[in-house]
Amino acid sequence: MRILVIGGSDAGISAALRARECDPASTVTMLVADAYPNFSICGIPYRLSGEVADWPDLAHRTTAEIVATGIDLRIDHTATAIDPARKTVTAVTPDSEVELEYDRLVIGTGAVPLLPPIAGLDALGPADGVHLLHTMDEARALDDDLRARDARRVVIIGAGYIGIEMAEALTNRGIGATVLERFDGVLPRTLDQQLADEISAELESHGVEVHCGTTVTEVRRDAGNLTVVAAEAKWAADAVLVVSGVAPNSALAATTGVRVDKRGAIVVDRQMRTNVPDVWAAGDCVHTHHALLDEPTYLPLGTTAHKQGRVAGENAAGGQKEFAGIVGTQVVRVFDRVVAATGLREVEAAGYSPLTVQTTADDHKRYYPGATPIQIRLTGDRDTGRLLGAQLVGTHGAEIAKRVDTYAVALQNGLSVEQLLDLDLSYTPPLGSPWDATQLAAQGWLAAR
Amino acid sequence: MRILVIGGSDAGISAALRARECDPASTVTMLVADAYPNFSICGIPYRLSGEVADWPDLAHRTTAEIVATGIDLRIDHTATAIDPARKTVTAVTPDSEVELEYDRLVIGTGAVPLLPPIAGLDALGPADGVHLLHTMDEARALDDDLRARDARRVVIIGAGYIGIEMAEALTNRGIGATVLERFDGVLPRTLDQQLADEISAELESHGVEVHCGTTVTEVRRDAGNLTVVAAEAKWAADAVLVVSGVAPNSALAATTGVRVDKRGAIVVDRQMRTNVPDVWAAGDCVHTHHALLDEPTYLPLGTTAHKQGRVAGENAAGGQKEFAGIVGTQVVRVFDRVVAATGLREVEAAGYSPLTVQTTADDHKRYYPGATPIQIRLTGDRDTGRLLGAQLVGTHGAEIAKRVDTYAVALQNGLSVEQLLDLDLSYTPPLGSPWDATQLAAQGWLAAR
Repeated sequence: MRILVIGGSDAGISAALRARECDPASTVTMLVADAYPNFSICGIPYRLSGEVADWPDLAHRTTAEIVATGIDLRIDHTATAIDPARKTVTAVTPDSEVELEYDRLVIGTGAVPLLPPIAGLDALGPADGVHLLHTMDEARALDDDLRARDARRVVIIGAGYIGIEMAEALTNRGIGATVLERFDGVLPRTLDQQLADEISAELESHGVEVHCGTTVTEVRRDAGNLTVVAAEAKWAADAVLVVSGVAPNSALAATTGVRVDKRGAIVVDRQMRTNVPDVWAAGDCVHTHHALLDEPTYLPLGTTAHKQGRVAGENAAGGQKEFAGIVGTQVVRVFDRVVAATGLREVEAAGYSPLTVQTTADDHKRYYPGATPIQIRLTGDRDTGRLLGAQLVGTHGAEIAKRVDTYAVALQNGLSVEQLLDLDLSYTPPLGSPWDATQLAAQGWLAAR
Repeated sequence: MRILVIGGSDAGISAALRARECDPASTVTMLVADAYPNFSICGIPYRLSGEVADWPDLAHRTTAEIVATGIDLRIDHTATAIDPARKTVTAVTPDSEVELEYDRLVIGTGAVPLLPPIAGLDALGPADGVHLLHTMDEARALDDDLRARDARRVVIIGAGYIGIEMAEALTNRGIGATVLERFDGVLPRTLDQQLADEISAELESHGVEVHCGTTVTEVRRDAGNLTVVAAEAKWAADAVLVVSGVAPNSALAATTGVRVDKRGAIVVDRQMRTNVPDVWAAGDCVHTHHALLDEPTYLPLGTTAHKQGRVAGENAAGGQKEFAGIVGTQVVRVFDRVVAATGLREVEAAGYSPLTVQTTADDHKRYYPGATPIQIRLTGDRDTGRLLGAQLVGTHGAEIAKRVDTYAVALQNGLSVEQLLDLDLSYTPPLGSPWDATQLAAQGWLAAR
């Protein structure tokens, strides 16, 4: 069996590895568009901050390790055409074009950065100090450019994960960061306003300038100076970083007859199978089954890409595995605080009668030194009592990342808020409470219902 | 409705508070045998270490806070007789005897320390430097005694939680600690030998002497000197701490016709109801429903006592709530490491075909500074694939306490080891991995099955 995988990031490598594992007799070829197979894109801000010493450190696996698994790795191979009738993929390399045959194909082409409708952006690029940040090449270009310009101030357009992580990274590097966000709070896809304000305050306390509810209308370059313009103000910058989200990279698939949804995400079934025979897809290029929603959603995350890729690879190798679906679990560290969320917020809970209650509870018994408050916004269904989602903000060290996981597992198993009180969670005074903070939030919700 | 609660620790206070909450018209009286209602017994080692500044800090709630909830609190009231026919409880105070009537009774008398069969122990007490450590009075007596003797070396008999926590507490206080354990490893009810050895090493690296597989045969006092004797050696000590586990404190209940099991634990149904009409029981004095075992077990823990007390209180007030059962989740910090466990170990998994696989995985992406390895022993059923239990050892700060909770929730929901891979857990490079360590352990188990 010849299995061909387009893409070598999280979904692609997971599919390739799993296919090899399930069918060691298969030939698995993996096409990677750049020279960075299986790199941790999520790690880019930590390399740019200087916390990670060198670019190759970001590789989940080295090229040698990938080759050792028996995968036929082709770097610098950009797929340009799929012929599902002949079962071939055409790819270009820096100096040639090749055609590859497949029996089974897995598409893991990822996402592309969104370019918001801002005047001037189209015409400006890295040479002008205006950067996107999605690939390793873009990251290295930004790094070089910041050094070349001896940048003192960078304006970041977009306060999602990457925007916030980059604000911290630049600050750690001694560069001033200004974050502009068109929604009313930072991390607008993750947090309600009440908690978003906490994170804005954290950023500001470390010297980051944050302006929410600010729609950038123009980026212009005059005599070597960059200016970012919104209705209420303008900001001078040595460099501008545009991190306003991503869209599925599905153009190649779509032109081949693979069905995509209105967002451009490839439509797959629970086996990660597309409408085209013998073609699977996974990762940031596909829509995603959400355990709490009737309709698929689009939420590109590395964790999901790994899981979907694994399912696609297993099935391409002859399996019948189903992707269990997500509940949208996320976490980000912001200086000394950690933000985590899972499930639905009220604004996302279409079809439910959501009620959200905010509670503050200590991470561990207050009598033991170092206890810190965790703010938890719990959303449940008023009618059925079902848990719908949770947002947490606490200090780094307060086990926020793994506390959100308790809620995530509860959500995936359809628990009610009241059933959270039945969970047999761990306790010792330096690390928790007899009723964990996650359960005290449930008690708060039940009292307010 | 007159609800009477015997006991003011975790189970008693939880029952009393919940009864008041469910039926604000009820009269709830709580008898507390000493002067310390609702104190955190689990916090005693941290007060003795000096980390917690003062004894009253250990109160979960102050007396004033308890009284403010409307509970009729009676401190220094030791219940001495229950008359289920007349529905009365007799209690003695330092200077009198009182009889109280009830409509509904909740027994939360807790546990008593086990005295191991060691020659000499019967005759020795705090005045001789030989201490138990279960009540606040015992804790304060130990504290005073260590100071009075200017103790330099304490021998601890028993390497369960309290023994280990006290070894750390004494070390922090500058007192040498020697731990003697008759089983082959420390924390013998929690950890397999492989991980227990890690914890012995951690203790030893901080100067604690640890001797496992050592059965103490005698404690003797000659001319003011204490000696602890085992077959292979003897140890001189300024004080001896006997922390060899506890047994249900059920004598009062048993003499009243309340049924107890062979361990002496009060027999209750899932509603925490005893065989005697209008009498419920909860906490360290009862046996406990275990979600993975056909038979009730005895595992006295504060978390369980809180949950059972809440159920008993709700039902005493007219409810029909069921206790969901435990999976045995536990955590303890040992100097710079954290030990956590949940579910069953192989030796406990009667009726299953257990397979245990040990994996080591980083707490977060290795490229980000400060990653530390977590050792995880995962036990699953070889035939069905069902998850049965997990033991974790990692560094303090690696979110071990809340990682075990992921397994706990999975166990309570009957997940298989393979389904752990479906869990949508949080990830950001400084705090996790795309496949969390808990999931990498599952992959390790599946590969070895």
